[in-house]
Amino acid sequence: MPSVDICFSPELLPLYDLRGKVAVVVDILRATSSIVTALANGVTHVFPVAELAECAALGQQHGCLTAAERDGRAAEGFDLGNSPFGYLPGGRLPVRGRAVAISTTNGTLALRRSLAADAVVVGAFLNLQAVADFAQAQQKDVVVVCAGWKGKFCLEDTVFGGALAERLAATFDVTSSDDTLAALHLWQQARPDLHAYLLQSSHVRRLNSLEANKDFDFCLRLDEYPTTLPVWQDDRLVAAG
Amino acid sequence: MPSVDICFSPELLPLYDLRGKVAVVVDILRATSSIVTALANGVTHVFPVAELAECAALGQQHGCLTAAERDGRAAEGFDLGNSPFGYLPGGRLPVRGRAVAISTTNGTLALRRSLAADAVVVGAFLNLQAVADFAQAQQKDVVVVCAGWKGKFCLEDTVFGGALAERLAATFDVTSSDDTLAALHLWQQARPDLHAYLLQSSHVRRLNSLEANKDFDFCLRLDEYPTTLPVWQDDRLVAAG
Repeated sequence: MPSVDICFSPELLPLYDLRGKVAVVVDILRATSSIVTALANGVTHVFPVAELAECAALGQQHGCLTAAERDGRAAEGFDLGNSPFGYLPGGRLPVRGRAVAISTTNGTLALRRSLAADAVVVGAFLNLQAVADFAQAQQKDVVVVCAGWKGKFCLEDTVFGGALAERLAATFDVTSSDDTLAALHLWQQARPDLHAYLLQSSHVRRLNSLEANKDFDFCLRLDEYPTTLPVWQDDRLVAAG
Repeated sequence: MPSVDICFSPELLPLYDLRGKVAVVVDILRATSSIVTALANGVTHVFPVAELAECAALGQQHGCLTAAERDGRAAEGFDLGNSPFGYLPGGRLPVRGRAVAISTTNGTLALRRSLAADAVVVGAFLNLQAVADFAQAQQKDVVVVCAGWKGKFCLEDTVFGGALAERLAATFDVTSSDDTLAALHLWQQARPDLHAYLLQSSHVRRLNSLEANKDFDFCLRLDEYPTTLPVWQDDRLVAAG
């Protein structure tokens, strides 16, 4: 029976052997939620990048849209901020048929460190079922790679790991590692009112102070895009399928 | 108001600035439980060491007792195993008035990486109140350093962190970091039946397979030694006093 492991921080990834496994990279607030939303709304592919300069360069060289923010707003000279609402109908720019370079420090680090895996996919509450279906079909060990907050444990990514473990519990071993057990327990506490539970988190409270409550609410929607699965291919994320 | 942070693995310690803080090193199964038991039962001081060879050398050079194990038994050529029962009345050797070199890989790593702190103390369920009293008296930020299991998150050390955070909650900030929030939630789930809760853990199941249930039961006793506080001094742990 394949297993589910949850790596709480990219800093701990050297302890996990990803070869032959599926890596699920998660950065709920907001990188992976935005990437899922982008691909679900017609964006052709996403380049996740760590630095603003690299983001801008991709925009100039490849003609893709650029998404980056400073202090909660679209950074100057970039097309979009890091909110998933930038990709929804009614957003600032049409995105269908375009590629996007998205600046995300924690998310990019987690992705780049996960490339030893057989498959690297992107998870969020928005596409939880798509991730679960992919894992079921692959029947390989799964490692959820939490982007965390500046390398530290964060509650929302971990709780996502617990939610995924729960969906896989019938056909995966979800009790043989303590990180998965803890994530499952935290998810079970959070599930009755995910919104209230995650409002406790320090990261979320920072978001609140930036008046990004709308993003927060959206990123917690379960299965908004139940068939959208961003997968890593060469140097970019594309929708599987 | 000083804060309580919980570092889930020595691998994450570079992300925590320990200067000016109190580090509480914890390795419930079984290093720090054994160290607390040793000092509570008349051992004068403890040298925690990572390697068996170093442990043996300390025994020869300083005439201290040596404690090390392989596969759940006292390793050949060493005086004691790693069980806390070695220090209790009725143990294999008299320990009162002796120094002990204890071999513990995870625990030693956690201790050595914590030395930037203002004070480094050793915590276990056995001396939970002693640790809480010390933190209250110091009124400095506290970082619980979980020894973990080969660098990975482990449930029993984290749950200890939650128990300590709960005892300090009236006068410390225990809600500003996600690691402390998670540890508190896990402790609250575990508290009604700590024994059953931790029996789930992979590490504990390994212990069980070595027929070390007696150690496990003992290490979960709360406040067995409510005034014994091992503190790091120069190159050793001594009882604060």
